[in-house]
Amino acid sequence: MTGGPRSGCPINAAVEVLGDRWTLLVLRDVILGDRRHFRQLQSQSEEGIASNILADRLRSLVEAGLLTRDDAGRGQRATYSLTESAIQLVPIIVHLGAWGSRHRPTSPVLRAGAEFMEAAGPELWDDLMAELRERHLGIPRPATTGPTATERLAAAYETIVATHQND
Amino acid sequence: MTGGPRSGCPINAAVEVLGDRWTLLVLRDVILGDRRHFRQLQSQSEEGIASNILADRLRSLVEAGLLTRDDAGRGQRATYSLTESAIQLVPIIVHLGAWGSRHRPTSPVLRAGAEFMEAAGPELWDDLMAELRERHLGIPRPATTGPTATERLAAAYETIVATHQND
Repeated sequence: MTGGPRSGCPINAAVEVLGDRWTLLVLRDVILGDRRHFRQLQSQSEEGIASNILADRLRSLVEAGLLTRDDAGRGQRATYSLTESAIQLVPIIVHLGAWGSRHRPTSPVLRAGAEFMEAAGPELWDDLMAELRERHLGIPRPATTGPTATERLAAAYETIVATHQND
Repeated sequence: MTGGPRSGCPINAAVEVLGDRWTLLVLRDVILGDRRHFRQLQSQSEEGIASNILADRLRSLVEAGLLTRDDAGRGQRATYSLTESAIQLVPIIVHLGAWGSRHRPTSPVLRAGAEFMEAAGPELWDDLMAELRERHLGIPRPATTGPTATERLAAAYETIVATHQND
């Protein structure tokens, strides 16, 4: 958006930045897929994002302060990092996935994954946010014992795939 | 969307329906503003939605099963009602408002309102969803004592406005 927000409403303020499907899918892929480079974000896109759309959305996200771009000197090698405001979208992304699982047609495996993330609750989401802060912002995670959020998600995903392999 | 979802991902499934700023703002106005008619939705829009955009988004929301349209026989007099899937967006809308409050420029009064809704937590959101089910789907609310969610929100809003009146 240029020219300032259209109203003072916080919901409007959020959707002016996020209210575009490709923007949310790019954020999903950085947050849950750990994709940090243009080429990865394009070639691994489940939805087949076009390169001009990806370039445009990455530029908007940097402008809006949701991503930073660390330019290594050669265009497509730049690394994108989440900012704190983008990391705080984790609960919204989980809720969107849970809502999509319940109300739209989706794949059984990915649906089970989204349901796992919702059921695990804020404790897992907070752990994931702490991991993202470490990877993207260099802020050390609080010392914890046991598996990380990413490890727990990977383990859940393996179980789900095994459960559904005869579907 | 025509032609089915672009992937089986539940987050994609959600944003294919919701990932458009005007769609989310129309839903906000029906859910939080109790606006049920085209003319209300247009004339009271804080963001000045254009009538062709409003007509298009209402049509899409009916097609996607998020709204139903009760046609009274004359175009602009039709009444729109939320479906159960749209009512279940309440937590997402609250989280979007909370995120917008924290990370984007917003008006102090509306920001305080969004913060109140977030802080009140799932208990208030559930009450609001029960009220919406009653108003839009004719499902009686569970008997409760004390003020309704709408009354609590209105009271909070009055307090907030009084607090900010010298800003």
